[in-house]
Amino acid sequence: MDAAIVGTGITRFGMFVGTRLRKLASCAADRALDDAGLDAADVDLVVVGNAAAGLLTGQEMIRAHTALADSRVAGRPMLSVENACASSSSAVHLGILAVASGAHDTVLVVGAEKMTSADRTLAGRTLATAVDLEREGQVAPDGAARPVFMEIYAAEARAYMQRSGATPRDLAAVAAKSSHNGSLNPIAQVRDPLTVDEVLAARTIVDPLTRPMCSSIGDGAAALVLTRPELARRRGQQAVRVLASTVGAARAGDAGDVVARTARRAYEQAGLGPADVDVCEVHDAAAPAELLIAEELGLVPAGGAVALARDGAFTLGGRCPINPSGGLVARGHPIGATGAAQIVELADQLRARAGGRQVEGAGTALAENAGGSLGNGPAACVVTLLAAP
Amino acid sequence: MDAAIVGTGITRFGMFVGTRLRKLASCAADRALDDAGLDAADVDLVVVGNAAAGLLTGQEMIRAHTALADSRVAGRPMLSVENACASSSSAVHLGILAVASGAHDTVLVVGAEKMTSADRTLAGRTLATAVDLEREGQVAPDGAARPVFMEIYAAEARAYMQRSGATPRDLAAVAAKSSHNGSLNPIAQVRDPLTVDEVLAARTIVDPLTRPMCSSIGDGAAALVLTRPELARRRGQQAVRVLASTVGAARAGDAGDVVARTARRAYEQAGLGPADVDVCEVHDAAAPAELLIAEELGLVPAGGAVALARDGAFTLGGRCPINPSGGLVARGHPIGATGAAQIVELADQLRARAGGRQVEGAGTALAENAGGSLGNGPAACVVTLLAAP
Repeated sequence: MDAAIVGTGITRFGMFVGTRLRKLASCAADRALDDAGLDAADVDLVVVGNAAAGLLTGQEMIRAHTALADSRVAGRPMLSVENACASSSSAVHLGILAVASGAHDTVLVVGAEKMTSADRTLAGRTLATAVDLEREGQVAPDGAARPVFMEIYAAEARAYMQRSGATPRDLAAVAAKSSHNGSLNPIAQVRDPLTVDEVLAARTIVDPLTRPMCSSIGDGAAALVLTRPELARRRGQQAVRVLASTVGAARAGDAGDVVARTARRAYEQAGLGPADVDVCEVHDAAAPAELLIAEELGLVPAGGAVALARDGAFTLGGRCPINPSGGLVARGHPIGATGAAQIVELADQLRARAGGRQVEGAGTALAENAGGSLGNGPAACVVTLLAAP
Repeated sequence: MDAAIVGTGITRFGMFVGTRLRKLASCAADRALDDAGLDAADVDLVVVGNAAAGLLTGQEMIRAHTALADSRVAGRPMLSVENACASSSSAVHLGILAVASGAHDTVLVVGAEKMTSADRTLAGRTLATAVDLEREGQVAPDGAARPVFMEIYAAEARAYMQRSGATPRDLAAVAAKSSHNGSLNPIAQVRDPLTVDEVLAARTIVDPLTRPMCSSIGDGAAALVLTRPELARRRGQQAVRVLASTVGAARAGDAGDVVARTARRAYEQAGLGPADVDVCEVHDAAAPAELLIAEELGLVPAGGAVALARDGAFTLGGRCPINPSGGLVARGHPIGATGAAQIVELADQLRARAGGRQVEGAGTALAENAGGSLGNGPAACVVTLLAAP
């Protein structure tokens, strides 16, 4: 792919009930421009990833224009992309195509979501619209109380325990590892490191998931500046190269293999394999999913993630650190911002800017972002492969 | 732009209360594939343009997957784009970039919207979210009754009458012309040709706009297959070439010149000027806007549209026919489908497939699609220039 990342920007992630979406999105956008050393006039296209502002804020249309109304790029050509929790990695995919096409020299991608509000049931009701409502049935009037996606992740975790021999301690260890990473990430939503025992002792959301194993609702925004590598060179910008970007989709009744399929196409596009990956950000909407995704991505053999996790392979300093940012459970999961946040983390890792959570010598990085539920797995998946400058 | 249109598909436009969005979108998608002579497996990416399914149907997320659940492309990589009433021309823009980048050989773009429902106030309340709600104030509880956009178009028409000398008959003549074109279009929502007197005698919506001068709510879908010209040649497909595709955006307090700015960039990209355009589809959400847009696009000198319209320049057989499909007021305006529908009409005109409304010898065509309201004009604008095979 003839594309590179030359700037990143991110806000704090957290529950900021009084902070508007436009403040978050504009802050991330302007920070990414500053990081790239560019002006708004240099930006040819802005692609906003947002999953659910229509239900969450009422702003169903002109989402991009309103989210960026207070930013320096207000008035630049823009549009908005939805792909559930994979919205902003999908936006990055389109941004990559835009610069690779030659039609746009510089593209700003912004992922943003504002989930908290005075109505405490709103975010839950909104998340429940990331399934096929006609097939699954409309959300019941009391649907607000049911954590639809945590039920899905819990069922997946139970099935995984059965076939892999993972114990409750193994699942808790993933959350403890992520909380440790989050404690090293200044923008993370959850910054308290937890022990395995603390994770196990926490309140159960849906068995076997306890509270620290589940991503919370939250608010945040992340942004990236994309350009072509030769332009970055000419401008003297440090450029993280895009090796691959692939989008996958599920359909009703399929094999639930969308993550594996999408990753295979990404490796093929990049001309490398899972063994070449030095650091990953994956879609751990619940912590145990990290083990399953490591297998789906081919980072470890099927059924092999538990043993490797016990050996510390996925911790900072391990063979292949996963979710150095803290992942969805610790950095946070403001849904439309997550995909961009993963790629911001990896671009910062590859430029050796990740501070206390830096993965030494990281040369190749992989982001896996999933969205919605359809058939026997996520509805959407985007895999991005990046290389250090 | 290294992109071409090799297939089109469109549904009937109209008020089909009992017809689901997925039926409309899937029908248009499959027709476009059939027209291109391609299978679903040939499609590398599907870009869905949809403006407001979240509020209109409740399906806030995985819009693409659910809209196309019943189509042959279910399971192909897909995502959804929002840019208010310019959603599906924005989707076409991204589809063009996707094939031009070389990363995708064949892209299907589908624009779809389902506006009618048992709740007769829903569509009006939804349209009112295409302004900046924080700046303009939330929709009032009785907001359902106010046709927000028709008020904007009426104010624009009154100002235009004052500065151009256009009379109520001039405005009505535009609607009568469009209704004539719609009567020749088998998929049009309004198929009864009206006289100028009938348009003037109809019920006033907001002075000076009478009912036939205003686009209605409606349901419909339109789809296009895009590929690179050399691939089309190899496959033996008749290919409508994309000469330019530009996206523009407004910001609060700007000059309201987004249409003119976006068109200028499109002419520059294509290396041609307004005098080269043989046929247009423009965003006549209310009929009088057609005259103003003709001036903004440079098709006629500022203030010159009225005299040329009186001479019949914009009718079928005139110097530069505008809205041969019937435009938004007659073909219909299911908002997320409109941009794709305009381009379907022009691609069919350029392939001499437009039946009784064919513009003889059409070689170059222009589509102008606008969305939302911001500052002193539309929030978004997309201009597309196409050339006959």
